[in-house]
Amino acid sequence: MKASLQTKIDNLNKPKGSLGRLEELALQIGLVLGTLSPTLRHPCHLLLGADHGIEREGVSVSPREVTWQQMQNFTRGGGGVNMFCRQHGFHLRIVDVGVDYDLSDFPTIINKKVRAHGTANFLHEPSMTEAEMERCLAIGRELVDECHREGCNILSIGEMGIGNTSPSSLWMHLLLGIPLEQCVGAGAGLNQEGIKHKLSVLQQCLQRFSPLTSNPSPLTSNPSPLTSNPLPLKGAEGSIMRELGGLEMVTAVGAMLRAQELRMVLLVDGFIMSACALMAIRLRPEVRECAIFCHEGDESGHRLMLQAMGVKPLLSLGLRLGEGTGALCAYPIVESAVRMINEMNNFQDAKITKYF
Amino acid sequence: MKASLQTKIDNLNKPKGSLGRLEELALQIGLVLGTLSPTLRHPCHLLLGADHGIEREGVSVSPREVTWQQMQNFTRGGGGVNMFCRQHGFHLRIVDVGVDYDLSDFPTIINKKVRAHGTANFLHEPSMTEAEMERCLAIGRELVDECHREGCNILSIGEMGIGNTSPSSLWMHLLLGIPLEQCVGAGAGLNQEGIKHKLSVLQQCLQRFSPLTSNPSPLTSNPSPLTSNPLPLKGAEGSIMRELGGLEMVTAVGAMLRAQELRMVLLVDGFIMSACALMAIRLRPEVRECAIFCHEGDESGHRLMLQAMGVKPLLSLGLRLGEGTGALCAYPIVESAVRMINEMNNFQDAKITKYF
Repeated sequence: MKASLQTKIDNLNKPKGSLGRLEELALQIGLVLGTLSPTLRHPCHLLLGADHGIEREGVSVSPREVTWQQMQNFTRGGGGVNMFCRQHGFHLRIVDVGVDYDLSDFPTIINKKVRAHGTANFLHEPSMTEAEMERCLAIGRELVDECHREGCNILSIGEMGIGNTSPSSLWMHLLLGIPLEQCVGAGAGLNQEGIKHKLSVLQQCLQRFSPLTSNPSPLTSNPSPLTSNPLPLKGAEGSIMRELGGLEMVTAVGAMLRAQELRMVLLVDGFIMSACALMAIRLRPEVRECAIFCHEGDESGHRLMLQAMGVKPLLSLGLRLGEGTGALCAYPIVESAVRMINEMNNFQDAKITKYF
Repeated sequence: MKASLQTKIDNLNKPKGSLGRLEELALQIGLVLGTLSPTLRHPCHLLLGADHGIEREGVSVSPREVTWQQMQNFTRGGGGVNMFCRQHGFHLRIVDVGVDYDLSDFPTIINKKVRAHGTANFLHEPSMTEAEMERCLAIGRELVDECHREGCNILSIGEMGIGNTSPSSLWMHLLLGIPLEQCVGAGAGLNQEGIKHKLSVLQQCLQRFSPLTSNPSPLTSNPSPLTSNPLPLKGAEGSIMRELGGLEMVTAVGAMLRAQELRMVLLVDGFIMSACALMAIRLRPEVRECAIFCHEGDESGHRLMLQAMGVKPLLSLGLRLGEGTGALCAYPIVESAVRMINEMNNFQDAKITKYF
């Protein structure tokens, strides 16, 4: 299949390779969907909202209530995610997996609360129980199953959760072995002092977490973690999600794993969703094959994370809004790749001298 | 207007600046169109085709006949430019300003031939006469007038002309004072030997050209040419276009100048169209304000040119097809910026705690 796809792409009427990243995307999508003539159908966007106990430590410039206020706002169509979904024809599903507010008056918010008030504060105790973690993973899977049943074969995922760059930084540090200070950034707009405080809080969280793991540095010893066999780390990965996770993040991991099983194209957003993709890839390396990394955000550390994962994002537009906007923004480029392989004619049809 | 636009953008319900380049684009487009609620109307794409005498010196990997073959192919809808125009709803105008072939059997190709067989070989003689240069500039203006009459306020321009990276490299060298070897690249796919030969040919062209200009290095003496007053150089710019130009390139310059006069948003494609934008900006600095540089191509030197112009392109996807595909590919991002300013609600409407 790979050779046939490459031959088809090389014979389109253009100098070989001259559509750059679009050619790579067309090959990847053809492989994921298992066809020489891929089409993108019924794109869906999962917007997963939850609150974070760690927010109580002043690690975010935005107050906690912004999570529920924005969730409500998304139902009115006025958020960044709404305008991107309208522009590109995405079916938006807004899902509450643990927002610290009763949103049951909003019928367009899917109520899948795993914990009513968000995660526990992982400075002091695990974010969630084992059962809650499993519940999040299952919800992610179910949401993707629903999309798939509607005919969706391309999925993007976004998040709304004040404080969620903190667990993302910890996941990055623990999964890639990159020093914590290089994993911690400004989030939605902390100043230098705020970043220093955030780093200090997260260092304390690690001190609580480390004694819990049997091996003192089980995850940082491998210089090329993504290409290694991830199985021996599975227990550690579960610990990280449960102890230092976000409800929306674990749900996203479950969704990504299911999207791979169903051979869907997965659009990966910025820092937080990249951390979730990293986790999903560690749990199952094949997730990488269906993942398109869409946007390199402003969050310090995101570039480093993508480099360590060996992936090159499509866009770098300085977006740091979250909600999955970076993934949605890149969708037309993915669509261009698919149009290229289906709509451009080849040298023979076009009666063009094939010049190399 | 600028302050009002910035206030409107800052009050949309997102952390200030969190939509990055989209916010910069919204400001720029609002200023060009002179409104707080800009809309993009009837996007048009001019595809300008012409042949180049310099192609006879073996400076291109593709043979000359590819120009006319591709022009015909565009009428059948199978080219890269066609699929992008369909995807993004651009009205495509295919214009022959000097293709070395009789295309009169193709009613969808607008016949504006200035020279029947393309430019003269500027290794030996000027590309075109003064009158032909003026004719190209006038055609560019007329084409834009037509688009504008139809209601168009956003224009992109592409080219089809085997050999046209050669004049573009010369324009870049002469207008920016960057050493010629840094301005010359692989075009559609030359190897190292081919690039060396191309450089040698272009050096000889410069030797012919230099004695013609009154001042031996009139254009390279200013370290910051784009911010300087361009008026004293106008004569030299005319000489460059006439002596070392392409018919489609001079037409593009005319189109860009007219687009600025009509306050249209101008999407600038890759290396060749950036060289034309550079020329247009030198002739009238205000062109810069309406120009959105869309794609940093693979052509060695393009990055250097954009840096010297002080502009940051939206995309970097390794495209090197020409036809304006880099400009078209970026269109949805420009549209996102416009949707952002029109469709996102502000903190007050959204009832969100404004957090900074």
